[in-house]
Amino acid sequence: MDTKNTHEIDIVLATSSKINSVDFDNLSFGSTFTDHMLVCDFKEGKWGKPVIKPYEPFMIDPSAKVFHYGQAIFEGMKAYKDEQDQVWIFRPDQNLDRFNKSAVRMAMPEVPESIFIDGLKTILDIERAWVKKGLGNTLYIRPFMIAIGSGVIAQPSTQYRFMIILSPAKSYYSGDVKVIIAEHYSRAANGGIGAAKAAGNYSAQFYPQKLAQEKGFQQIIWTDDATHTKLEEAGTMNVFFKINDTLYTAPTSERILDGVTRKSLIDLAKREGIKVEERSVLVDEIVTAAKDGSLKEIFGAGTAAVVSPIVGFQYKEDYYELPKLQNSIAMDLKDKLTKIQYNLAEDTFGWTVKI
Amino acid sequence: MDTKNTHEIDIVLATSSKINSVDFDNLSFGSTFTDHMLVCDFKEGKWGKPVIKPYEPFMIDPSAKVFHYGQAIFEGMKAYKDEQDQVWIFRPDQNLDRFNKSAVRMAMPEVPESIFIDGLKTILDIERAWVKKGLGNTLYIRPFMIAIGSGVIAQPSTQYRFMIILSPAKSYYSGDVKVIIAEHYSRAANGGIGAAKAAGNYSAQFYPQKLAQEKGFQQIIWTDDATHTKLEEAGTMNVFFKINDTLYTAPTSERILDGVTRKSLIDLAKREGIKVEERSVLVDEIVTAAKDGSLKEIFGAGTAAVVSPIVGFQYKEDYYELPKLQNSIAMDLKDKLTKIQYNLAEDTFGWTVKI
Ligand SMILES: Cc1ncc(COP(=O)(O)O)c(C=O)c1O
Ligand SMILES: Cc1ncc(COP(=O)(O)O)c(C=O)c1O
Repeated sequence: MDTKNTHEIDIVLATSSKINSVDFDNLSFGSTFTDHMLVCDFKEGKWGKPVIKPYEPFMIDPSAKVFHYGQAIFEGMKAYKDEQDQVWIFRPDQNLDRFNKSAVRMAMPEVPESIFIDGLKTILDIERAWVKKGLGNTLYIRPFMIAIGSGVIAQPSTQYRFMIILSPAKSYYSGDVKVIIAEHYSRAANGGIGAAKAAGNYSAQFYPQKLAQEKGFQQIIWTDDATHTKLEEAGTMNVFFKINDTLYTAPTSERILDGVTRKSLIDLAKREGIKVEERSVLVDEIVTAAKDGSLKEIFGAGTAAVVSPIVGFQYKEDYYELPKLQNSIAMDLKDKLTKIQYNLAEDTFGWTVKI
Repeated sequence: MDTKNTHEIDIVLATSSKINSVDFDNLSFGSTFTDHMLVCDFKEGKWGKPVIKPYEPFMIDPSAKVFHYGQAIFEGMKAYKDEQDQVWIFRPDQNLDRFNKSAVRMAMPEVPESIFIDGLKTILDIERAWVKKGLGNTLYIRPFMIAIGSGVIAQPSTQYRFMIILSPAKSYYSGDVKVIIAEHYSRAANGGIGAAKAAGNYSAQFYPQKLAQEKGFQQIIWTDDATHTKLEEAGTMNVFFKINDTLYTAPTSERILDGVTRKSLIDLAKREGIKVEERSVLVDEIVTAAKDGSLKEIFGAGTAAVVSPIVGFQYKEDYYELPKLQNSIAMDLKDKLTKIQYNLAEDTFGWTVKI
């Protein structure tokens, strides 16, 4: 192995690349990884030196706190390649900021920019070949942190591992997305960890999602757990509702993830002169709007799916179909956002960062 | 290594035991493990053969779902040694049952009794020497299951690992326990996973617990997340309140763990002729009762601490001290329960199981 030593990151390159064995036209989301990963351990109160090395399994104690107490957080980002073979990432400062907010909520150490951002840039530079050209092709980026300290006592760990792994991807969802509005199960509690990208928030949704899928729905729109009257977000997407000419989306709160796609779409929509209101959206409101025809669109927004138009929703006994549109706001905003991400349109917001 | 093969469990014995290097008088809870662990993997829709082998770290992929989505559950039990050197466990059927309820809620496969109970009995038989005689000495048992399937997509894993690890213990808590009643943070949502022993429930409490500890409180008594008016449970204990001569404890619900200690204490108290009511206990009620002197005791109940008397509680701006009692119900019930667990008193309930 070739060992480089940059100022701040140790680099051990893989002796050969797996890239030629990958079928980039038939990728199943999140299952293929690039040649390298970044690893950085925290112990005795401080972060060690990050290392980029071949992607591989690692050893861990059966009593590691991540297994017993779920002390684990993550982020989801993407790298894009433009027509000139330049590689771009999108608003990484937002992901770093959210990651560290998640860290605080989960009693984990914050990761400094010099490890998160510089580490990400360095590994992306090494893995450039894995970012494929063409709209829809991305390299999905998964920074995450787990508690590796051992001991089966319910207390924060003193040792952590921060890692970045990379997975080439096409688009996340396919086919029509029908959703069901949650009436019993919930995603987050008041005063809970819903606003954190904490591992435990996701497995908590698997069972209700399975029940929804069995009924023919791809996603659940979560409601507030106390009254189930307010629409909050989907499993990995924030949700927008277009009623007449206005876009509505729930305000972020301690129950709702502050999505980067969400905030970017809001800015884009406002720039287009579209009226956007961040306020609680009631289930009753969209049922009424669906009935009287003023509900024009519902769509999800998140890094994985970008924008995911929803064709209809189930609430209690009834299914409400949404109008089929030629020119939807969802697709228009998706197009505008994607063009910025792929450096096909001018980035007046200063969102993109070149690797 | 010596390799045995029982009917259903492969056994690979450690070549030597660590037991002589352990200071059994100075154990820190959950940090020392016995010589062996039980491992059983689930894949392609079925459980493989359990293996008992030397306790050691194992290899896992960085993309394992347990790290990203927190798909992990556990149980907590204890083994006790009586004066005749016989080893006992307590109501293991209850833990198996709860484990499998947790599994269902977390979209994980249920573990059959032949693996959970028979596996536990077999490994305890091997580790008998690690169960020390004397009240307070126990071998803490940690069965757990983690999602080991790889892939960073928020979907249930198809591969799981069930393990049992064992840790010799003295008592869990020491010193006076002062608690604070939650006003903002919460442990569980309606329709959430609070009733499951899911890993993510525990790390979610670390940050508020840290804040409480900084203020001088060892535990938080959680309240319902919607109104913060109902007393629910503590981090790893159910909670009882004695007002005049009646014991009150919150009913189990989808927000509250159905504790084995809780249900056993209820049965014991009823046998003693003590009045027990399982119903919502309001914060206001205990504040009023503390003020007028009718609040006699508060105590936590859980496997780790058994019974943990609480000396006082903070609510908003005020601290309420509890009377110091010579003969508390807490200590009386603890004594009765412990005697059954250590085979020092007749087990009229049929709770104990001999290894
Ligand atoms: C619960 C949840 N909501 C919303 C989102 C969307 O956030 P972002 O746009 O930053 O990807 C995510 C992340 O993917 C999420 O996990
Ligand atoms: C949240 C919670 N409540 C209560 C308990 C008490 O349950 P048990 O008596 O079965 O140990 C536990 C487990 O230890 C727990 O984790």
